[in-house]
Amino acid sequence: MIRTSRRLADGREILYFDAEPVARDAVDTRDLPPVATRSQLRFDALLGEWVAIASHRQTRTFLPPADECPLDPSRPGRPTEIPESGYQVVVFENRFPSLATGVDRDVPAEAPGNSLAELRPGFGRCEVVCFTDEHDRIFADLGPDRARLVVDVWADRTEALGAIEGIEYVFPFENHGEEIGVTLSHPHGQIYGYPYLPARAQKILASARAHRARTGGDLFADVVAAERSGPRVVTANEHWVAFVPAAARWPYELHLFPTRKVPDIPALTGEERDAFVSVYLDVLARFARRFDAPMPYIASWNQAPVHPGSDGRARDDWWLHLQLFSLLRAPGKMKYLAGSESGVGAFITDTNPEDVAEQLRAVVVE
Amino acid sequence: MIRTSRRLADGREILYFDAEPVARDAVDTRDLPPVATRSQLRFDALLGEWVAIASHRQTRTFLPPADECPLDPSRPGRPTEIPESGYQVVVFENRFPSLATGVDRDVPAEAPGNSLAELRPGFGRCEVVCFTDEHDRIFADLGPDRARLVVDVWADRTEALGAIEGIEYVFPFENHGEEIGVTLSHPHGQIYGYPYLPARAQKILASARAHRARTGGDLFADVVAAERSGPRVVTANEHWVAFVPAAARWPYELHLFPTRKVPDIPALTGEERDAFVSVYLDVLARFARRFDAPMPYIASWNQAPVHPGSDGRARDDWWLHLQLFSLLRAPGKMKYLAGSESGVGAFITDTNPEDVAEQLRAVVVE
Repeated sequence: MIRTSRRLADGREILYFDAEPVARDAVDTRDLPPVATRSQLRFDALLGEWVAIASHRQTRTFLPPADECPLDPSRPGRPTEIPESGYQVVVFENRFPSLATGVDRDVPAEAPGNSLAELRPGFGRCEVVCFTDEHDRIFADLGPDRARLVVDVWADRTEALGAIEGIEYVFPFENHGEEIGVTLSHPHGQIYGYPYLPARAQKILASARAHRARTGGDLFADVVAAERSGPRVVTANEHWVAFVPAAARWPYELHLFPTRKVPDIPALTGEERDAFVSVYLDVLARFARRFDAPMPYIASWNQAPVHPGSDGRARDDWWLHLQLFSLLRAPGKMKYLAGSESGVGAFITDTNPEDVAEQLRAVVVE
Repeated sequence: MIRTSRRLADGREILYFDAEPVARDAVDTRDLPPVATRSQLRFDALLGEWVAIASHRQTRTFLPPADECPLDPSRPGRPTEIPESGYQVVVFENRFPSLATGVDRDVPAEAPGNSLAELRPGFGRCEVVCFTDEHDRIFADLGPDRARLVVDVWADRTEALGAIEGIEYVFPFENHGEEIGVTLSHPHGQIYGYPYLPARAQKILASARAHRARTGGDLFADVVAAERSGPRVVTANEHWVAFVPAAARWPYELHLFPTRKVPDIPALTGEERDAFVSVYLDVLARFARRFDAPMPYIASWNQAPVHPGSDGRARDDWWLHLQLFSLLRAPGKMKYLAGSESGVGAFITDTNPEDVAEQLRAVVVE
C-alpha cells in the first residue's frame, strides 16, 4: 500500500492510498475559506458522559444532486474534495468536522452558569474515507482487493490518530443508506478520533472488570467461545466468525469477531485481514439481499482504547469486533428509537435473534 | 378524580378516569382472541443491560386510516379499544405489549448456546393512556383541566404499577409525531413498568453516589440550583422550572424540574401539579410554534426507582424530572442517531444550548 499525503486548498490533509505506486500531484484549485471549528465538549454531570456540540455543522452539505457529489474525483471545470481525476481509497479531514485538532482552544472552563458542566474545546479528528471513486457502488460490491485496501487504511488511520496527543479512542465506521440520515450517497465511511472514551467502551470495560472479579474469567473470551459454537452463527472461516448476539438490540444485528484476541485493527495479520474481508463481504451481501432493496446499516468498529487506562488493562481486556446493524425491521418499516430507548435507555426489539440468524443464513450469496 | 375499572373482551383491564362521576358500563362486543405474550428479557453481558425481545409485536397496528383509529371511542357498528361512546382519560393494557404481567413464564434460564446471556420472561406492564377522545387534538391544546387530569392519572398508575411485585421502575412517556415512528396519531401516551432499572436511571444513580463521595453534595440539588438561575431557563413559576440542560444531547431538549426535591409524580402536591401543567403547556406551545409545523417530540418522565435499592438511597437520591426533546434540528431535517451515537454512544449535537434556550424563549405563546 502506497500512501501519498497532500493538502487541500484550505489546508486540510488529504491522503491517497493506492495498491501500487501512482503519481498523486493534482492541485486543489478551489478558493476555499479556512476551516473554522468552534466545537465544544460539555460534561453531562447526571449521566457522566461528554457531549460534543458542533453548531457550525448545521450548514453542512445535505443530499446534493448526484452531479454535484463532493466525493467524486475532480473533472475539468468541476473541482471536488478530491483533486485527482481518479483514486482508489482516499482519506481527508472533514470540511465540517465535529472534532478537530485545529479547534479554537480558547473556551471557558465551564458551561455558562453551571460549574458542574465542565467544558473543553472540541479537540479530536474527523476523517472521511472514500472507498472508491465510482459514485454508484456500495461496499458490498467493492470486491476483495479493494475491501482489503480499506482494511489496511483503517489500520493506518488507527495508528496515526492514536499517535496524536490527546486522542483516547479511534472509531472507524460506515453509515449506509439515506433512511438513516446519510447526507452523501457516494460510498464512504468515517473515522473519528475522540479525546475521551465513548460510553459503550466504558461500559464494556466495566463489565469485563466485574466479570473477572466475579468469575476469574475473561468476559470477551467467554462470550466469543459461547457464540462461536452456538446457534446464532451466520458465517465463519478460520479467522473470523459472524453471529447475531444473544441479546441483540437492533432488528438485524451481527457481531464479527476475529477468533484470536487482538485489541485493534493494526494488530491483525495480513491473513486475518483477508479472512475478515471474506466474512464481511459475505454478510454485507446477505444484508443487501435479505429484502428486495439493500438494507440501510451502520458498521461500527469496536477497538480497544488507545491507552491502557487507570488500571493498565483496558487494551489487554479488549477484543476487537465489528458491530453491523440495521434499523430496518421489515421492508419499509424502520425501528425508531422512541421513549423506551432514547428516553430511559431500555431497548426493546421486535426480532428474535435465533430467527434473524436463520433468515440471514438462508440468503443465497453467489 | 373518579376511576372506573372494566375489562375488555380479551380480559385486559381498562380504566376510565373522569373529573366527575360518569357511568362507565359499556361492554366490549368484539370477538377478540386472548392476548398471548411471549416476550423475553435477555442480558447483554458486554454492556450489562437487559434487552426486551417482543417478536410478537411485528404484526402490530401500523398507521391505520383515521376512520379506523382504535383509540377513538366506539360508535354503533364500529367498536374500538374503548367501548364507551365518549371518554375523558382512559388507560388500558396494550394489546401488543412488550412486557406483560401475564407473560408466559415458561422460559429457559439462558439464551440458546450462551450461558452468559441470562434469560427471563418479559414480565412487566405496558399501558396506553388516551388523553382525550378527540382524534385530532394534541397535548399542547388539551387545556389545563384535562392536562391536570392526565397528571393525576400518571400518579395513579405510578402507584398502581409500583405496587406490583417485581416491577422496579415506572415510566410514563409520550412519543409524538409520525417522524419518530408513532404508529397511531390519536393523542396518547404510554406507561411502562419494567422489572429492572433502565440504563439511564442506573447511570444517574451511580453519578449521584460518585458526586456525594467526591464533594459531599447532592448531585441533583447542585444541578437544579445552578440551572434555575442560569442562562438556559426558558420558563418557570413558583414550583417548576424548564431549562435547556448545559450538555443537551438532542437538537431541542428541555428538562422540567419541580423546585422541591420529590422522587416521583405521586409525591407532588395538588398545587405543584397545577404548576407543572402551566409550565408544560407553555413549553409544548413553544415546541409547537418554533417552526411552521409542530415539532415531533418525546416526553420522558424520569422517576425514582420503585425500591430504595442495595444502598437504600435510590429514592432519596432521586429528583423527579421530565425530559422533553425533539430530534428535529431544522424544518424538514431530523437528527439521526448514526455511528457515533448508536454505535459507540458518543452524542454529537448541532445546536448550541444557549441558542436553543433563546429561540424557545422568543416564541410568542398566546
